Amino acid sequence: MIPKGFRAAAVEAQMRYKNRLDLGLVVADEFQAAAGVFTQNVCQAAPVTWSKNRIAGGRAILVNAGQANAQTGRGAGGRCLQSAKAVADRLGLSADQILLASTGIIGQALNIEALVEAVPALVKKLSPEGFGDFAQAILTTDTVPKTAEMAIPFESGPEAWIWGAAKGSGMIAPNMATMLGFILTDVAVDPKLLRSILSQTAENTFNRITVDGDTSTNDSLFIIASGAARSQPIAGGPEADAFKKSLHKVLDSLSRQIVRDGEGATRIVEIKVQGARTKEEALLAARAVAQSPLVKTAFFGCDANWGRILAALGRSGADFEPYRVDIDIDDLAWIRHGLIFGREMDAAAAMKKREYCLTINLNNGPGQDRMLTCDFSYDYVKINGSYRS
Amino acid sequence: MIPKGFRAAAVEAQMRYKNRLDLGLVVADEFQAAAGVFTQNVCQAAPVTWSKNRIAGGRAILVNAGQANAQTGRGAGGRCLQSAKAVADRLGLSADQILLASTGIIGQALNIEALVEAVPALVKKLSPEGFGDFAQAILTTDTVPKTAEMAIPFESGPEAWIWGAAKGSGMIAPNMATMLGFILTDVAVDPKLLRSILSQTAENTFNRITVDGDTSTNDSLFIIASGAARSQPIAGGPEADAFKKSLHKVLDSLSRQIVRDGEGATRIVEIKVQGARTKEEALLAARAVAQSPLVKTAFFGCDANWGRILAALGRSGADFEPYRVDIDIDDLAWIRHGLIFGREMDAAAAMKKREYCLTINLNNGPGQDRMLTCDFSYDYVKINGSYRS
Repeated sequence: MIPKGFRAAAVEAQMRYKNRLDLGLVVADEFQAAAGVFTQNVCQAAPVTWSKNRIAGGRAILVNAGQANAQTGRGAGGRCLQSAKAVADRLGLSADQILLASTGIIGQALNIEALVEAVPALVKKLSPEGFGDFAQAILTTDTVPKTAEMAIPFESGPEAWIWGAAKGSGMIAPNMATMLGFILTDVAVDPKLLRSILSQTAENTFNRITVDGDTSTNDSLFIIASGAARSQPIAGGPEADAFKKSLHKVLDSLSRQIVRDGEGATRIVEIKVQGARTKEEALLAARAVAQSPLVKTAFFGCDANWGRILAALGRSGADFEPYRVDIDIDDLAWIRHGLIFGREMDAAAAMKKREYCLTINLNNGPGQDRMLTCDFSYDYVKINGSYRS
Repeated sequence: MIPKGFRAAAVEAQMRYKNRLDLGLVVADEFQAAAGVFTQNVCQAAPVTWSKNRIAGGRAILVNAGQANAQTGRGAGGRCLQSAKAVADRLGLSADQILLASTGIIGQALNIEALVEAVPALVKKLSPEGFGDFAQAILTTDTVPKTAEMAIPFESGPEAWIWGAAKGSGMIAPNMATMLGFILTDVAVDPKLLRSILSQTAENTFNRITVDGDTSTNDSLFIIASGAARSQPIAGGPEADAFKKSLHKVLDSLSRQIVRDGEGATRIVEIKVQGARTKEEALLAARAVAQSPLVKTAFFGCDANWGRILAALGRSGADFEPYRVDIDIDDLAWIRHGLIFGREMDAAAAMKKREYCLTINLNNGPGQDRMLTCDFSYDYVKINGSYRS
């Protein structure tokens, strides 16, 4: 169910792609608060800089796919203003109320003429039924649109919803190197609380997935609250908990969809590390395994090559004793005390599943964390060896 | 020219591979000093632990290919002793004078029976002509043997040589995550000086190459000095400089051969970073580019996708201003002030060369460093998706 107070649309702006939806718009006809998290890459795309500075008052989001408007020179900021103004004028808003997001080729000048020319038709198409088109328009090498929705299970009061759409695929890695994510809700939330809930929730979902360890220049996650269903802002207590739980479920679903749709991915593996000395070391260990090309190609080949996992753990920076490591594949006891346990063929069979979980216990402390990753396939190389052709 | 005072041999021990040389031995009939550098992986193979503790007195090196003797349980140390003793007894040495190195599958018990059984024939075959066989026996997924030699250009005195053989390919990454390297010389060098020269030289050669960012459990680099050509130990001064320069050339040649033979590699790219705030940040930047799967697949596709390079630099941890970055491909000015300069087709053409150099200037300080890397190809995935089948 789409939260109340929003409309969306998408058009074929022909900016770089031909004959496909490539320009999307979401507007909050009622607006209460907005928040965002952004890439930590030093090379920050112009729309990221633009939106960072205007996030709190952002009540509309304009997204284009195909051109990242990153590393496009001093003129990039001006093109952001032009795009925002074109939309703002049609909506009777100020340019500062328009958030911008772009995805696509870095370094290619934004086709601003095509964008501006497409805006009138885009605004005209805005409707409560436009969200499917919007979710489609933001994709690049993605193979499927990614959306998720949740009714927030409040004790009382009218029903309220959270809806989200995401764009992912390649260049997915931790540190808010996620992708584009757009979250809408029709509750009202204290702006400061909204910010902190969003960043905590993103940290445990989008920042725990990786496709190739790379970090984009454009990654942005926005949330806009309309307050159309509940105008009394959530300020804490059980209502804040219910809201946070629901937001987590939406972001978790979107982040899993992103990894499932990772470039060339044939297998999805959750890497759970337990028993690390600290939570930080657990994340180091999970990340080293989740990003190791040798491990990821073994996932692709369903090769129960546990030595590569031990080797990745051993260089992760986490402190542990090799002969105390236990590893399970789902409920199969695979490695015990750093040595193979049971039959290798059972492990190989378990790795043939499309999705499974590796639980790694370092038996060296209370620290735990997790990463969601996918395998490295021929298609990953194919897609990325010729992304632009 | 093989340095004086050494003999080598290799045999088919049938430990895991069938009908190929898989067990090699080098002996210093005259011995003056030895030194080594070893993997920093927490999961350290038994032969690494063995050799680390005996390196200073090591006058023979026994190497097997196919089984890493890593994560093979408490018995692994005992099997090291058995192998060393089998060789020592035949050579009239003590087991503590035998250095050990293994490469191959992690977690597979060492076939000690086959090894011990092969030792008599191995020792019998020792000869000054055995070094070609030795270089062959230490390979796994390598496609060619890797050797290098240099005459040390001393001002005076009899000629002296440095010879080396290496085993590399997959699992090559910085932090002494290199491979196996065996260096022989017939000069005499003060043992303390030999250690420091070896580690400095390794840091600037073997620790500056990467194939897939992974770090092995077995990586070891040994040097043995026989003193057979010059028995007066080098203690410093111009002779030490001449020796160090020659050793650097040998290790540099071996490390380049390793990257050239990287699993599935079709292109070799040197990443030179200049103008970083510090040398440390230059290395962070070079490593991020050299290990980025998106960059490496672009190398494979000869895709002049400079945005991926900027994105990798931007997440490297190095501090810089995106619009001050310059990048050259060999002598082609490709990126200036963070923007494309000249024609992209020229860059694409330059990337078709089998070997080229990317010079990245961050224009933010005096720091510089470099990494040597290769591309990610279909064959990389193929080889590593089924290494053991």
